[in-house]
Amino acid sequence: MDTPAAPPKLSFDTHPSRYRHWTLSVDGDLARLTMKVTPFGGANTEVELKSNSYDLSVDIELADAVQRLRFEHPQVKACVITSGHEKIFCAGANIYMLASSTHPFKVNFCKYTNETRLAIEDASQHSGLKFLAACNGATAGGGYELALACDEIVLVDDGSSTVSLPEVPLLGVLPGTGGLTRVVDKRKVRRDLADAFSTLAEGVKGKRAVEWGLVDAVVPRSKFADTIAQKARELASKAPNVERGKGIQLDEIGEYKHVSLEIDEKARVAHLTVRAPAGEVPKTAAEALAKGAQGWALRMARELDHALLRLRFEHETVGLVLVRTEGDRAKAHAVGELLAGPEKDSWILRETRLNLARTLRRMDVTARSFFAVVDEKSCFSGPLFELLMACDRQYVLDTDGVALHPGSLSAGALPGWNGLSRLQTRFLADPAKADKVLAAAKEGQIDAAKANKLGLATVHADDIDFEEELRVAVEERASLSPDALTGMEQNYRFAGPETLATKIFGRLSAWQNWIFIRPNATGERGALTMYGKPERPQFDMRRT
Amino acid sequence: MDTPAAPPKLSFDTHPSRYRHWTLSVDGDLARLTMKVTPFGGANTEVELKSNSYDLSVDIELADAVQRLRFEHPQVKACVITSGHEKIFCAGANIYMLASSTHPFKVNFCKYTNETRLAIEDASQHSGLKFLAACNGATAGGGYELALACDEIVLVDDGSSTVSLPEVPLLGVLPGTGGLTRVVDKRKVRRDLADAFSTLAEGVKGKRAVEWGLVDAVVPRSKFADTIAQKARELASKAPNVERGKGIQLDEIGEYKHVSLEIDEKARVAHLTVRAPAGEVPKTAAEALAKGAQGWALRMARELDHALLRLRFEHETVGLVLVRTEGDRAKAHAVGELLAGPEKDSWILRETRLNLARTLRRMDVTARSFFAVVDEKSCFSGPLFELLMACDRQYVLDTDGVALHPGSLSAGALPGWNGLSRLQTRFLADPAKADKVLAAAKEGQIDAAKANKLGLATVHADDIDFEEELRVAVEERASLSPDALTGMEQNYRFAGPETLATKIFGRLSAWQNWIFIRPNATGERGALTMYGKPERPQFDMRRT
Repeated sequence: MDTPAAPPKLSFDTHPSRYRHWTLSVDGDLARLTMKVTPFGGANTEVELKSNSYDLSVDIELADAVQRLRFEHPQVKACVITSGHEKIFCAGANIYMLASSTHPFKVNFCKYTNETRLAIEDASQHSGLKFLAACNGATAGGGYELALACDEIVLVDDGSSTVSLPEVPLLGVLPGTGGLTRVVDKRKVRRDLADAFSTLAEGVKGKRAVEWGLVDAVVPRSKFADTIAQKARELASKAPNVERGKGIQLDEIGEYKHVSLEIDEKARVAHLTVRAPAGEVPKTAAEALAKGAQGWALRMARELDHALLRLRFEHETVGLVLVRTEGDRAKAHAVGELLAGPEKDSWILRETRLNLARTLRRMDVTARSFFAVVDEKSCFSGPLFELLMACDRQYVLDTDGVALHPGSLSAGALPGWNGLSRLQTRFLADPAKADKVLAAAKEGQIDAAKANKLGLATVHADDIDFEEELRVAVEERASLSPDALTGMEQNYRFAGPETLATKIFGRLSAWQNWIFIRPNATGERGALTMYGKPERPQFDMRRT
Repeated sequence: MDTPAAPPKLSFDTHPSRYRHWTLSVDGDLARLTMKVTPFGGANTEVELKSNSYDLSVDIELADAVQRLRFEHPQVKACVITSGHEKIFCAGANIYMLASSTHPFKVNFCKYTNETRLAIEDASQHSGLKFLAACNGATAGGGYELALACDEIVLVDDGSSTVSLPEVPLLGVLPGTGGLTRVVDKRKVRRDLADAFSTLAEGVKGKRAVEWGLVDAVVPRSKFADTIAQKARELASKAPNVERGKGIQLDEIGEYKHVSLEIDEKARVAHLTVRAPAGEVPKTAAEALAKGAQGWALRMARELDHALLRLRFEHETVGLVLVRTEGDRAKAHAVGELLAGPEKDSWILRETRLNLARTLRRMDVTARSFFAVVDEKSCFSGPLFELLMACDRQYVLDTDGVALHPGSLSAGALPGWNGLSRLQTRFLADPAKADKVLAAAKEGQIDAAKANKLGLATVHADDIDFEEELRVAVEERASLSPDALTGMEQNYRFAGPETLATKIFGRLSAWQNWIFIRPNATGERGALTMYGKPERPQFDMRRT
């Protein structure tokens, strides 16, 4: 069993002016993200992050930069991701950091980096922001996985620089950031070549890398800079013609305004409360833009996102989150209608909506149970109705004054990882039921009895039974095996169609978790443990 | 780490006359499979298989019965699966058997039972053979998972009998035989109800089981037998109108005629050789029928299937299988053309083809690397071309006389788990390439150089390099972490669309493997280990 260690001190709040590992520069509709990892500048300052290898602090900066491109620089159409080193693009996740981490940290680290890669693809698909990986040197493991998340990959052709996934041959683990999935499912590399590639520690270079479909082009070093500049312009010219604007500044999260997270360590329960807007709500995109990062929907989603990350990394033994909402249902509903209304294609509403969708999807892959508590004070209305649907169960008090109010956002504007709306996923057996909920919501707030009839309540109980039912459910949940619950939830949360993302979180990550805990990887003589030591790893050779 | 134990002595060859746990009875177009597990009659005669709980020997009989229904009783349109006990349908996999098994055995046991459930669904979809689960008593865990594999589930309504998935609350593991997947993806149960159901050790009964979609009907005990008889007739009347015949007898496998499996335990390599038909090959469905179980295609696939199971259970440390073929390419090709030709809907050709497809899919989820060796002697022709495509890599010798010959079977008649043909999966990036291979094959055998050009060779080398390339590849494969290879292969073998099966093998099983190896399940105080003991399990409560 892992020795529990104090969680690393991490801040998920950063700013380009404070980046230690990346430089973000913007020039018109082009941007450049340059990685030059500070060797002893990671979360653990005793680990040398050599050769542009990364730890979580590096990925937090990358996630921040992608987020800022969308909100602060919406005019940018193409972003080049490259390295500030001469002969190394990126060596992937730092092995010593990984090998010395606990199992829960390993799993959460991979989850976060996967979410960052998927956010890059989300920006490419929905925000008109294309990415070009300019691999100016060795591109290994997580480095190649970062490139795979980009729209185009160009590798320098210098006789030595390769792309590689050396995890299987060198470390006895999988490339854990979507590499296997993207090789065969995004780039559609032939599976026999993918197999050969992924067991070849030294990787593939030059013409062969193009022939196998691992990169889009190779370019001699002498022409590299010019070609990248040209390809970036071409990519920008092909970026979807979405509405763009001047951008807004994202402030620091600091203290939460609309979210509170209270932890009951003893009961291993978190109380997460989200409040509806208090002041006046914007009626137009222009009003939303004027509020900038202080607009309720954006600020609330950013706080919620932050709270989910704190739960994952700082409160490992909390197994259950009780999700509550409070406030003015009409106001929350109005914000939702603006976000999905006639002006929905305006850049600020689009990005606010995409950001909310990403936050709810962060919830879907958070290894915690979420039970929603719906009572008289609740405000599961507009965007917050989707929060209700993201929970594993809904406890609805049967009394006057309890009401839900889904709006237009719930008709598909905030898709889950499977690409469906949360109502569609809930009512897979009978899609008409999702339509009925939306139709009922058009008439106004839906009271508890009707919500129950419409299939929105897991438990619907009057006040005599409600507290007791909830108390028993909370205690029961806390008593169950945390591993079995995680596995169960990950099988139940995204039924229906599969996407690259569901394959990454559902399949690839599950195999990686298994491998991470196997003695062949992390035992005393496992490959990950032995990396960099003179002795060879020792394997239990039984194939399983 | 597990203490390696001698593999259990198992025979995959059985016959209804020797069943210890099941009775198969056939009456016209209806059949009945009755489960009454012999308490100390399993593979380990010291384990009491109480309450119709099962071990591998029980599932081998079930798989045999389903296979015999298709080949020996093709007239059967509906089969009732029920229990010979009064108040118990089936309690699922035996916990003591599971808890005392090694990790590799647990994983292989679940894989086999999953294949059996999927074979039931394959028969329902393609062989006009529908299944009715007559749950005449408690239906728990794997018992409910067996019911879920049927087309219809009827539960007795006696005030006490429930359906349940108690694995999470009682054992700290997942229902490992497709239960979670089928609940939300086949029966499309609402995910909040699925969550509540799967943490409720006592399960759900009566009207609520119907309302939640867990069963199709509940029937009082007094009317149970009559209702089941009536529903079986209804199901039979709705069975697809496929061609049916008198049936053939399936003989024992005994000694292999067309397959050889040689094990090099030291190198951890198996040599699997499949030979083309030697005698005259059938030209019509009637000739194929006359050959019965001695027909080459059926016999060869059954031997191959048997060899794969032996590999899994008896040769755990063999990591790599070198797949070779020999014999007359024209004959093998002719058999393939008959199987996919004008008479393809005749029952004997249909069942032979479906059986071959299932065998190749058994290969896809076998945790071994498969490298095909193509030289002058090779006969990767007709059905055996699909064997080539099922391998992880293809080593093709560049010399005269080497040739491949795909036929009509390769155009989709033998789909993989993702529902695509193996050529489609190989050429996901460019579907036209699959068509080019099929077009080239219409002209005749495809020589080595052309095969390479068409994208059918991973490595194409002349005789100076061939042996050396192969030797290095074999040694390299043997040196890699067996776990990492399994994870990699399971991510690469079914790219493209997802199906119930890919979700079960790719996602559910990967999570289960992870959970099986976690101390919370199988550690000294893990829930699986502690089952039936007076003390409570102890969990490391970190959520991961």
